[in-house]
Amino acid sequence: MTTTRDRLLDAATELFYRDGVHIGVEALCRTAGVSKRSMYQLFSSKDEVLAVALERRAPDYANAFFPASQDAGSARERILYVFERLEKLSAEPEYHGCPYLAVQVELKDPEHPASEVARVVKGRLTEGFRALAEEGGARDPQLLARQLTLVFDGASARAGARVETLDGLVTPTVSALLDAAGVA
Amino acid sequence: MTTTRDRLLDAATELFYRDGVHIGVEALCRTAGVSKRSMYQLFSSKDEVLAVALERRAPDYANAFFPASQDAGSARERILYVFERLEKLSAEPEYHGCPYLAVQVELKDPEHPASEVARVVKGRLTEGFRALAEEGGARDPQLLARQLTLVFDGASARAGARVETLDGLVTPTVSALLDAAGVA
Repeated sequence: MTTTRDRLLDAATELFYRDGVHIGVEALCRTAGVSKRSMYQLFSSKDEVLAVALERRAPDYANAFFPASQDAGSARERILYVFERLEKLSAEPEYHGCPYLAVQVELKDPEHPASEVARVVKGRLTEGFRALAEEGGARDPQLLARQLTLVFDGASARAGARVETLDGLVTPTVSALLDAAGVA
Repeated sequence: MTTTRDRLLDAATELFYRDGVHIGVEALCRTAGVSKRSMYQLFSSKDEVLAVALERRAPDYANAFFPASQDAGSARERILYVFERLEKLSAEPEYHGCPYLAVQVELKDPEHPASEVARVVKGRLTEGFRALAEEGGARDPQLLARQLTLVFDGASARAGARVETLDGLVTPTVSALLDAAGVA
């Protein structure tokens, strides 16, 4: 059974992603089919709904990009896999870029609770890259991880804005960075 | 003498950049010291103010990143210079990322007049990269130009969100891509 809380978080995930974080409480509650009174019994503010919705989505986000270990190839292959997944996701019509980057860009406030969630989730992506970079023998695993996150965010922002398609673009970019870092 | 039009566009440039495109007409007119009536005599909508303000800022944006030809070094140096400038700009306290990328991310609508302006302005950045890539003998100038724009956008978004500092990050990233493309 779907609870009021789940309905609110589902609506928040969809609406904020599709239309932006500035969607109001009225529209959120209408989409969720929940009264404002019920919303404020569960959450202190719209900002909290946004932050909790982003947090709830984090495990799916991680699973989407890092394959289960039984399918794993070399560290290089697993890094390239992240970007193959991004390329596939970004070709879907409802893709609007990385939801965590979008929130950071839209809120323009690193102290906002939702920006903090985004920072933690994207920090895990960088950490995933760093672990693979180390396993793959990168000369400077931390630098490579930051470079890969930069490419990930640039690619997702540009594809999300429909000004770029990632096919034939991210794989050669990431390959060049892996080569330069000494990850064979 | 500053005209009403200039005051509106100055306020729009500052407010939309600092707080986002969802700032309302009231706040815009209040900051500009202009009545709503006067605004609507000059512009058909807030969206038009936003688009015109972005268009007006475009020449400064281009000049900020591409040096005047008398200072020009090799094609490789001039490409690296773009990212040195970005690194400097991004360290300023009022930096919130590339204004054109921000608008695209926030509006989530490629057909919006302001998204179209942003697409044209960033298209010129990519074209500037492409011309330098060709001059520098890149194997695939168009691919290199797209890669550099990807890094530019990822770097500006992450630095603007205060989750990354570009020092020691963009120069090695761009150098690796230039090396891979055969730009000496």
